[in-house]
Amino acid sequence: MTTNYTAPLADIRFDLFDLLEVEKLFARLPGCGELTRETIDAVLDEAAKFSEAVLAPLNEVGDRQGCTFDRTSAEVTTPKGFKRAYEQYVEGGWAGLTAPEAAGGQGLPETVGAPVKEMIDSANLAWGTYPLLSHGATEALRVHGEDWQKEAFLKPIVSGEWTGTMCLTEAHCGTDLGLLKTRAEPNEDGSHAITGTKIFITAGEHDFTENIVHLVLARLPDAPPGVKGISLFIVPKMRVGRDGAMGGRNAVRCGGIEHKMGLKGSATCVINFDGAQGWLIGEANRGLHAMFTMMNTARLAVGLQGLAVAERAYQNALSYARERLQMRALSGAKFPAQPADPLIVHGDIRRMLLTQKSLIEGGRALGLYAATLVDIQHRSEDPAEATRAEALVSFLTPIIKAMLTENANECASLALQIYGGHGYIADNGMEQYARDARITSIYEGTTQIQALDLLGRKIMQQRGEGLQLFLEQLGAFCAQHANDESLSEFIPELGTLAKEWMEVTQTLGKRAVANPDEIGAAAVDYLMYSGYIALADAWARSVAAADASGQSEDFKQAKRLTARFYFARLLPRTRAHLAAMQAGADSLFAMPDALFG
Amino acid sequence: MTTNYTAPLADIRFDLFDLLEVEKLFARLPGCGELTRETIDAVLDEAAKFSEAVLAPLNEVGDRQGCTFDRTSAEVTTPKGFKRAYEQYVEGGWAGLTAPEAAGGQGLPETVGAPVKEMIDSANLAWGTYPLLSHGATEALRVHGEDWQKEAFLKPIVSGEWTGTMCLTEAHCGTDLGLLKTRAEPNEDGSHAITGTKIFITAGEHDFTENIVHLVLARLPDAPPGVKGISLFIVPKMRVGRDGAMGGRNAVRCGGIEHKMGLKGSATCVINFDGAQGWLIGEANRGLHAMFTMMNTARLAVGLQGLAVAERAYQNALSYARERLQMRALSGAKFPAQPADPLIVHGDIRRMLLTQKSLIEGGRALGLYAATLVDIQHRSEDPAEATRAEALVSFLTPIIKAMLTENANECASLALQIYGGHGYIADNGMEQYARDARITSIYEGTTQIQALDLLGRKIMQQRGEGLQLFLEQLGAFCAQHANDESLSEFIPELGTLAKEWMEVTQTLGKRAVANPDEIGAAAVDYLMYSGYIALADAWARSVAAADASGQSEDFKQAKRLTARFYFARLLPRTRAHLAAMQAGADSLFAMPDALFG
Repeated sequence: MTTNYTAPLADIRFDLFDLLEVEKLFARLPGCGELTRETIDAVLDEAAKFSEAVLAPLNEVGDRQGCTFDRTSAEVTTPKGFKRAYEQYVEGGWAGLTAPEAAGGQGLPETVGAPVKEMIDSANLAWGTYPLLSHGATEALRVHGEDWQKEAFLKPIVSGEWTGTMCLTEAHCGTDLGLLKTRAEPNEDGSHAITGTKIFITAGEHDFTENIVHLVLARLPDAPPGVKGISLFIVPKMRVGRDGAMGGRNAVRCGGIEHKMGLKGSATCVINFDGAQGWLIGEANRGLHAMFTMMNTARLAVGLQGLAVAERAYQNALSYARERLQMRALSGAKFPAQPADPLIVHGDIRRMLLTQKSLIEGGRALGLYAATLVDIQHRSEDPAEATRAEALVSFLTPIIKAMLTENANECASLALQIYGGHGYIADNGMEQYARDARITSIYEGTTQIQALDLLGRKIMQQRGEGLQLFLEQLGAFCAQHANDESLSEFIPELGTLAKEWMEVTQTLGKRAVANPDEIGAAAVDYLMYSGYIALADAWARSVAAADASGQSEDFKQAKRLTARFYFARLLPRTRAHLAAMQAGADSLFAMPDALFG
Repeated sequence: MTTNYTAPLADIRFDLFDLLEVEKLFARLPGCGELTRETIDAVLDEAAKFSEAVLAPLNEVGDRQGCTFDRTSAEVTTPKGFKRAYEQYVEGGWAGLTAPEAAGGQGLPETVGAPVKEMIDSANLAWGTYPLLSHGATEALRVHGEDWQKEAFLKPIVSGEWTGTMCLTEAHCGTDLGLLKTRAEPNEDGSHAITGTKIFITAGEHDFTENIVHLVLARLPDAPPGVKGISLFIVPKMRVGRDGAMGGRNAVRCGGIEHKMGLKGSATCVINFDGAQGWLIGEANRGLHAMFTMMNTARLAVGLQGLAVAERAYQNALSYARERLQMRALSGAKFPAQPADPLIVHGDIRRMLLTQKSLIEGGRALGLYAATLVDIQHRSEDPAEATRAEALVSFLTPIIKAMLTENANECASLALQIYGGHGYIADNGMEQYARDARITSIYEGTTQIQALDLLGRKIMQQRGEGLQLFLEQLGAFCAQHANDESLSEFIPELGTLAKEWMEVTQTLGKRAVANPDEIGAAAVDYLMYSGYIALADAWARSVAAADASGQSEDFKQAKRLTARFYFARLLPRTRAHLAAMQAGADSLFAMPDALFG
């Protein structure tokens, strides 16, 4: 039994056109002015078709077959149908959707790219990792590449002829890149000989394209130790000259693929570099800085992955809840002519469904809002506006990455639970979502790393600039609707929470000055607390936007009732996170290490 | 890389001898009086050895190989080593550990059986399902079997020569057994011809033993519809006469095994009965009643499964947190001579570890307390005490089943998270725990069913008798320690929560009278809320018991600091659950079904 997927176009369109008013936004952003609603609608429609018809049917086979590795040839074969789907993706012009026109892309804003990406990932999370990694490489090459590098490497990636990867992790270091050991020795022709072993390289080897462009972190001779001695190199699988001509095999070889909990259609590779020819990109010893260029986009993209897998799991759980007959409603039979009532009559089934619906739609509104900020940051002609957008998106990125992926785990698990014992059976497809979702809160920086990024860097080091901007907007929204009867069930609570958010941030800040361990002790609870308030903001705005829109009364009612559920039943989780973070570092550090077990 | 397991004997012994004072208890329970501490220690030591040395090494292979089904012979082959381990289990006399002596068992109390079971399940959750199902069948035969049935069926199960199953679920009904269709037609010899298909039959077919005794729910001709027309039958795989002699094959055939998310070493079977010879056990049309006899024990056993898998995941996460070097402590390098500090210096790693530790040890204390209640219920010579114990355990059973298994999912996920990307890789073993744990909150009644049992039956129908008894004990404990300086950090809060628990129960009760849907709307939040308070009670008692014991200062300190963590950082989750359940049915039922998606 293959599960179904229908692209949630109505909600995506509501977010774009009613909530975020992207038509107004694009009208004033350079390069977006000609982007009409009709064009955007057409892109979304086509992406929906491609996702539903081509990618979604390959989701199950991707999990069952997984990727296979041939030890002799060191080649990876992707699941049946994956390569053909990639060809269709390239033929459809999707590879360069948001890439710069100068490199052959279509130059569409990220705000359009994001929902396309969501649909692709809902349809097939594993397949979606191949283009995702190309997107990251595109960013790095676009920003840091020399002209010849853009010609030689960026253009074939944007066209989809080649794909890209990011090679950071080594066996002894993932989070702690300062420990990495891969070496880069200068060659006489200006290139470098790269030697080392990278692990967990998503899409590191596959059968989609003839060439794969690895972006590899390595150390130059005499590089300073730690993170300040890391440089970034372009290391293609097939050698590429400065003239862009592809030569023979480079000394880059896949050493194996990982057997994983899920995401089995995505090849997670060990990649061995054995004196491989590589080209320095960006400044020497500033490789981590160059990597960080991609980080915000990549982290937002993983947040969208979480949203995407939750959406598909929810759709199937909802169908099952409507079809599966089991027990009678506690308040009396709702469908007396049938042998039992459908699951959806039961209170806790509804709680599980509404938990998913509210986290997904709230997460989508927040995620797409962040996408508009990326576009403003990169395209606005007003430097102050661009800087402001950058601060906001930089603040929201760890929240979106961590919370939407933690939510994905919760939602996929609830969706499975609705199926009961049938959810645990592979044939029904629900357990795949739970397994696939689980990686999203780990890779591209774990929830723990996101939380340290938020509280340690974005709050402490940057003096909470992003939070202040976010709260200013929130305050303006509350002020604007202060006398709006129809929002009176949301606005006062939102305002109270905003005030509390600032206060607890200041309290934590003071504590952290006295003891830096206070940051780590509070970070994850602080992030989740922040996330729930950010989603509450998204929900209040969604209700306001729906009411003001031309959407149907049903649509408006669904938004309002879902928001009401969220405020009543999920937002109180902030109480638990608040208490936990206020407990302070002593609650974690008083225990001597030896006494943990 | 196989993960490790060391039986947590120190904590088990603390719970039994210091917290629960089982020596005093056994001294006054019939049939337990000769059970000395030395005997119990010896049983625990042997169980630890068997679990660590025989079962634990088979955990990984069980997951990798899974069970295989031969379509031609309809036979199931268990993973390599499973059958030999079962032989050793039988040789070691474990099969009849808690079974009645009259049936050839050793008659040990459940309070000793429970930690043995925990160790077996930690070592190998999938393997442990085979004896678990025998335990359930033993209970049904012991209580409801006629003398000849006990001779013919119970004795070979108790000796381990045969195993047992429980056949409830059919494709269209799991929770809603009233819908079941399997038929039982009377034969002339007093037996019945059983016809129907059962699914999700754990240990339904395997290669451990020559015979398998199925306990099957079916309908007699003219049986009333619904749950009042269900009878229970003994249907052996190999026919067995009234004289106990084994004959040829019965018309019972395995139709296939399920491919599942986890628990792959446990055969989950489709069992086809095609006019199979079966024997009515207990009264006609009272089969569900007979099944409920086993239910409390089976549900407590699944709660222990949750505890068990969490314990092993925690042990490995803790080892990894001590060994894996990554980043420096925020407050400065703790191991400057090493290239980085171990994970355990980081605040959120400690939070994740202490979350696991406090949920596991608190859960163990609560679970073993329930086991003492089962023994008192079944063995006490004081009818009032037995009745009281029954009410208490009946109240605690859904809490333990649901909460310890929900905790298992949380703990296994946190343990995986501590491994970072390496946790997602099959070779490292952590993802197996997450997959295995996931079934525990589904089978033997989902968390939703446990919650309805708690709030609908144990609170509403039984007027909260169990809760009142629990709160009386809690109140007595608080009163006893009211002036105990060393417990002043726990007692007042515990007392406040107990009062609130009673109040919110009364409020929900009133609401539910007006609208039965209020029960379903609040049930899961009410159960989790209750569970967190029950664990707080267990933690406060654990600190008091540790302080009063001859345990080491380190042990006492570890208990106190873990309890402090629990009260500060996990107990506040009651705030979120309280708010959610107080939101009422309208928060779930106002949304029209059509607007969910």
